[in-house]
Parts: sequence; C-alpha cells; structure tokens
Amino acid sequence: MRSTYDEQLQALESSLVDMTHLVERAIVHATKSILEADLLLAEAVIAGDEAIDSLAAEIEDKALQMIALQAPVATDLRIIVSGLRISASLERMGDLAVHVAKAARLRYPLPAVPAELHEVVTEMGNVAHSIVRKTGEVLAQRDVAGAAQLAVMDDRMDQLHRELFVWVLSPDWVYGIEAAIDVTLVSRYYERFADHAVTIGKRVVHIVTGAPYKPLD
Amino acid sequence: MRSTYDEQLQALESSLVDMTHLVERAIVHATKSILEADLLLAEAVIAGDEAIDSLAAEIEDKALQMIALQAPVATDLRIIVSGLRISASLERMGDLAVHVAKAARLRYPLPAVPAELHEVVTEMGNVAHSIVRKTGEVLAQRDVAGAAQLAVMDDRMDQLHRELFVWVLSPDWVYGIEAAIDVTLVSRYYERFADHAVTIGKRVVHIVTGAPYKPLD
Repeated sequence: MRSTYDEQLQALESSLVDMTHLVERAIVHATKSILEADLLLAEAVIAGDEAIDSLAAEIEDKALQMIALQAPVATDLRIIVSGLRISASLERMGDLAVHVAKAARLRYPLPAVPAELHEVVTEMGNVAHSIVRKTGEVLAQRDVAGAAQLAVMDDRMDQLHRELFVWVLSPDWVYGIEAAIDVTLVSRYYERFADHAVTIGKRVVHIVTGAPYKPLD
Repeated sequence: MRSTYDEQLQALESSLVDMTHLVERAIVHATKSILEADLLLAEAVIAGDEAIDSLAAEIEDKALQMIALQAPVATDLRIIVSGLRISASLERMGDLAVHVAKAARLRYPLPAVPAELHEVVTEMGNVAHSIVRKTGEVLAQRDVAGAAQLAVMDDRMDQLHRELFVWVLSPDWVYGIEAAIDVTLVSRYYERFADHAVTIGKRVVHIVTGAPYKPLD
C-alpha cells in the first residue's frame, strides 16, 4: 500500500513538471507569435490551452483521491495540497500565454508590438521562458535555492515592465493609444506570468521547510 | 467528534463569508479612492490587505488540520479543498482592490480617472460591489442559482470594460497616453475581480452538484 502511495505522490509531482513543459511551450510560442505576427502559431497556443486545463483537472482529481483514500498527514498532505495550488498557478500561466497569443491574433496581420519594442518584449519572452523552465526544475528537485532564483528573475521582469512604460510614455512614441494599450497589457501578462512562478517557488519552500506560505501583494 | 467536526466545517465556511465582507469593503473603498482622489482611503485599502491575507492563511491552516485529523471523504473533502481554492480567489480579489487603490495613490493629488470616465468606472465599482456581495450570499447558502447570476454580473463587467476602451480610443480622448494606460489597467483589475467571483461560483456549484470544475479561459 505504502509503495503504491509513494508512486502516486511521485506521479503527482511528475504531472506538475509536465505542466511546466506545456506552459513553457505555450509562452515560447506566444512570444514568437506576437513578435512575428504569426497567426497560425497564435491559434496553436490558444487551442493548446485545453491540454493544460485537462492536466490541471487530472491533477486535482488525483490529489483528491489520494487525500480521500490515503488520509495523508504532515509533509505528504502539505505536498498534495500545495500541488493543488501549484497546478492552479500553472493553469493561470497557461491562460496568460493565451492572452499574449490573443493580442497577436487581434492585430493580425499588423504586428502588435512596434519595432522599437521588439527588444524589450523579446527579453520579456526570454525571462518568461527561463522562469518557467527553472520552475520545472525547482519542482522536480524541491530546490529551495532555485526558488530564490525565481524571485531574481521576477525582479528582472518587473524591471522590463517598467522599461516598457518608459518607451510608451516617451514623447517620441508615435504609435498612438491603441498600440500603447496593447503593449501595456501584454507586458502586464508577462509580469503576472513571472509572479506566478515566484508563488510556485514559495509553495515549494513551504513543502520543504514547512515555513508558512505568504502570498505576493 | 462528529459534531465538533461539523462545527469546524461550518466555521470554515463562515470564514470564507467573512473574507467576502473584507473584500467588499476593500473594493468599495478602492473605488471611492480612485474616483475622488482620496489618498487616505487608498492607504487604508492598501494597509487593510494584510487582514485579508491573514484570514486566508488561517483558513488554509484550519483546512489542512481538518484534512489531517478528520480524514474527510466525498462531499466534506470537496468542501474543504474547494474552500482552499475559494480563499485563494478572495485573497486575489483583495489584491486587485489594492491595485485600484495604488493607481489612485500613484496619481494623487491628480485624479486617476478623467471626468468623462467617472460614470463607467462608477458602474464598474458598483458591479464589483454587487458581485462580491452576491458571492458572499452564494457561499453562505450554497446557492447554485445565485452562482449563475454571478456570471451575468461578470458579463456586465466585460461590457463596461469594452465601453471604456471605446472612450479611450476615441479621437476625442484628450488625456494622453499615461491616463489611457492608467484607466485601462484599472479597468482590467475590475474585470479580473469579477472573473474571480465567477470562479468562486463555479466552485460552489462543484461542491453542491459534484459537477467537474472547469476553469475560465
């Protein structure tokens, strides 16, 4: 019984890591779709979100079954309940990738990101890519030090978010209000994406150390 | 034992309803702070978020204790785990009220909402107020029909969100890009606020009917 249970716990954690891989693909493709005005890729990201939602639902079912059938306590219970929270964050990160892809689709065939902002949005995409990959590693290895690195990456994302505002509010901005709003919202999606990674890192720290979890503001 | 347990379950549900009251106050004050450029009120909303976070943490602790000590199954387990999710949504709604208040603080002593948009932002605030109050009732009474009404209120919020874009993108917009971005983000905070209420409604339906929960896109 116990060994089956350990296998189930292991399977739950693997499913979370699998989710990070789906979310990684989603955000990489979403970034490409918005930078290159690639409609097919944007559509693929939007359609692909169902797989992320399904995996989240599966994780929830499995977690509830484990709680009901195995009556876990202490660390195991913490892992399972945190797993539910982590899955919710990853599900939301998938949604944010979809929002980026939808911004690309909305303006197609025009680019949603003006040329001057390609560099900053490219870097936001790179940080988003790195942070979700690192999140997968942190989850797989219950890596408390890695969780701290997620916060550093998030700081970089916040900095890029502020940089983008400087561009948009500069007197040289010639793209008008609609484009300003588009890129502001896209930037906000990336910024929230990184926030969720930090939240997941905090949950992992909570699993490992039992330290109370404190939400971001 | 069982009666203590029922009391605990009842207490958990009451705490969630208490959270809706705190969030209700936060969004009402946040709306007033941004419409009237009221810095003290904005600061109060920002400072008040800690009480919401603490209550969320308390709910999480209690829920985990109940799972560990009582090994609930079936409906009870569904209530407890859904309670964790609901508390996370309410915690986030509190954050969104804080974001509105911070937008008010950022522009103080200037108003963050131009006069032409007072009406639409006032109505967003009213819908946000109604939806969180209704959320409290839906939770208190496990009201499946009420959960459907949350979705109708959310549709109204989405409509206001679109109306606001029409104003901001109109050729008559004279407030510049910074104000356009401010009100777009504020509008997005209200829109997300309402989304979370719908999510909570879906969780209540899940508790009552056992129907699978499906996340919003």
